[in-house]
Amino acid sequence: MKLKIAVLPGDGVGPEVTAQAVKVLKAIAQEFDHSFQFKYASVGAVAIDEMGDPLPKKTLDLCKNSDAILFGAIGDPRYDNNPSAKVRPEQGLLKLRKELGLYANIRPVKAYDTLLDKSPLKKQFIKGTDICIYRELTGGIYFGEKTLSEDGNTASDLCVYSRVEIERITHLAFKAAQSRKRKVTLVDKANVLESSRLWRKVVTEVSEEYKDVKLEYLFVDNAAMQIILNPRQFDVILTENMFGDIISDEASVIGGSIGLLASASVGDYYAMFEPIHGSYPQAKDLGIANPIASILSAAMLLDHFELFEEAELIREGVEKSLKLNITTPELNSKFNHITTTKVGDFIEDFI
Amino acid sequence: MKLKIAVLPGDGVGPEVTAQAVKVLKAIAQEFDHSFQFKYASVGAVAIDEMGDPLPKKTLDLCKNSDAILFGAIGDPRYDNNPSAKVRPEQGLLKLRKELGLYANIRPVKAYDTLLDKSPLKKQFIKGTDICIYRELTGGIYFGEKTLSEDGNTASDLCVYSRVEIERITHLAFKAAQSRKRKVTLVDKANVLESSRLWRKVVTEVSEEYKDVKLEYLFVDNAAMQIILNPRQFDVILTENMFGDIISDEASVIGGSIGLLASASVGDYYAMFEPIHGSYPQAKDLGIANPIASILSAAMLLDHFELFEEAELIREGVEKSLKLNITTPELNSKFNHITTTKVGDFIEDFI
Ligand SMILES: CC(C)[C@H](C(=O)O)[C@@H](O)C(=O)O
Ligand SMILES: CC(C)[C@H](C(=O)O)[C@@H](O)C(=O)O
Repeated sequence: MKLKIAVLPGDGVGPEVTAQAVKVLKAIAQEFDHSFQFKYASVGAVAIDEMGDPLPKKTLDLCKNSDAILFGAIGDPRYDNNPSAKVRPEQGLLKLRKELGLYANIRPVKAYDTLLDKSPLKKQFIKGTDICIYRELTGGIYFGEKTLSEDGNTASDLCVYSRVEIERITHLAFKAAQSRKRKVTLVDKANVLESSRLWRKVVTEVSEEYKDVKLEYLFVDNAAMQIILNPRQFDVILTENMFGDIISDEASVIGGSIGLLASASVGDYYAMFEPIHGSYPQAKDLGIANPIASILSAAMLLDHFELFEEAELIREGVEKSLKLNITTPELNSKFNHITTTKVGDFIEDFI
Repeated sequence: MKLKIAVLPGDGVGPEVTAQAVKVLKAIAQEFDHSFQFKYASVGAVAIDEMGDPLPKKTLDLCKNSDAILFGAIGDPRYDNNPSAKVRPEQGLLKLRKELGLYANIRPVKAYDTLLDKSPLKKQFIKGTDICIYRELTGGIYFGEKTLSEDGNTASDLCVYSRVEIERITHLAFKAAQSRKRKVTLVDKANVLESSRLWRKVVTEVSEEYKDVKLEYLFVDNAAMQIILNPRQFDVILTENMFGDIISDEASVIGGSIGLLASASVGDYYAMFEPIHGSYPQAKDLGIANPIASILSAAMLLDHFELFEEAELIREGVEKSLKLNITTPELNSKFNHITTTKVGDFIEDFI
């Protein structure tokens, strides 16, 4: 198979982890006789520095002319603590999602048997956890109108959802549930928010088309508890943009490290693959960033093109690296000097 | 001291747990020679059933004419799964908060040594945790304009904050931090939301007046992780309404049971005390609801009137009940038949 892959390493540890994912994809191409072409472009704080724009037109064009996008991370402390910055790295990512219509962010959360000990949660609570979060990604309060009054003393953000936006991701979530444990949990705040009530109504209607899938509802505050108290109760979690952001980062603690979690952002035309962790600027260039999330994002990329065998091989490599303790420091109490690159090398060699 | 206390038991397990708190307050009054007068009024689904209004004028008037309000819980599944209900129990609680100007919801989260085993989190991660969450309670997306388009296909909720709303709770949070570990963590989503950027700006300004308190910032997604990964890093958490709702319920898992967590909602004129758990309708009348959260809310009520010795006695009673396993089933693996009432009786006797 021939694939044009746009690589957007971004900020912080983005470049180092993405480099490992590219390495692994190249190994796959060689092993399975595919032709993957990688083209690089900048995004985020790096792009602001270079071109004054967190998503330069050249980058967007490259993405539109590629089959898939491999994304690193975005974010820089120079902007975080400057509430009045007009141009911000995150705008690059948000615009990319919007322009490419990547409305569904898919975040699998798994408790790896070999890592159960690393989790802050007790083994018996998490063993066997296998959740897939479907987070709406191009609507809600992220993209509604924002205002700041002229005197700078009142600010607002609008959360809007329309039926179509809810329907399309709901179909994806239910289809996913059909080949999993056949349960969808809608997370919302329907006891307070009008937009959540629309979610509840539309999702309930769509669920009628999937009689073999059970639909449950959970208020987001309760969900934030249940994910820790009893994560095994979940199969597919479906939720809006902001709740999905919070809930999926929270769920990452189950696996023991957010450095393990990959995600796919898909729409009707494009697909992007990225770790769910952020740019982690404190770790930049220290070789301690975990590349697994990025490498597993590459596996999700292969899945997307139905290269299941190839994706599976990457996953086996990952599991093996975990089992043998070829892992970055946050997971490794045994070996001292396993760097980002070494983890990538190991999985490359495995392939 | 003479206190007029309005009691609003509300829905689900609200009445049973509130009854225990009243019992305990009566014991305190007797022991310390205070005169507490209790007057009851209805709120929530119960009030809708009785009077078609989740916050009848009579109830609101009673609250306004009382020194403090003891609140049970609110919510009913009949409304939760009916997105088009026009009148909803939660409106009663939200209106009460708004009308009484209860802008600061204070939620202490503690890991009790005797209960460390009950938490889904490993002991070494939580031992010693002592967090106090300051959640803004009368602004944000809870109270901004809501719309539903005529065809019912588009819904919106507006999140608005003004400088004044942020300032007043920020002062309370910093003052609290001064008599604690002198650290405030602001939880927001300033990389995406305009309202969060206003929070960051105003809180930073106010912090200048409290040079002895350290201010840290955390994005809400990261906060949702950090609360589980390393809860001891927190002292006072300050945040807006919706994030506070999610984060504080999440934090409740640290203590092993949400049935332990009390809260105070205060403003410039009124003060209300309530468990942070909900109406838990499945447990209604089964005698399994934990009354501790409600009883500790009564202790917070006493603190509010500077009856510190009295409040302390309640807390000692609670700790003793926990130590002796006089607890409801969710915490009790030793004894089988400890009901809501029995826990209340034990603490009453202790006093
Ligand atoms: C960087 C930020 C804008 C982004 C988000 O909130 O969506 C990130 O947290 C994520 O989850 O991908
Ligand atoms: C019942 C509900 C409206 C309420 C809220 O979201 O504020 C509850 O969850 C709480 O935290 O007090």
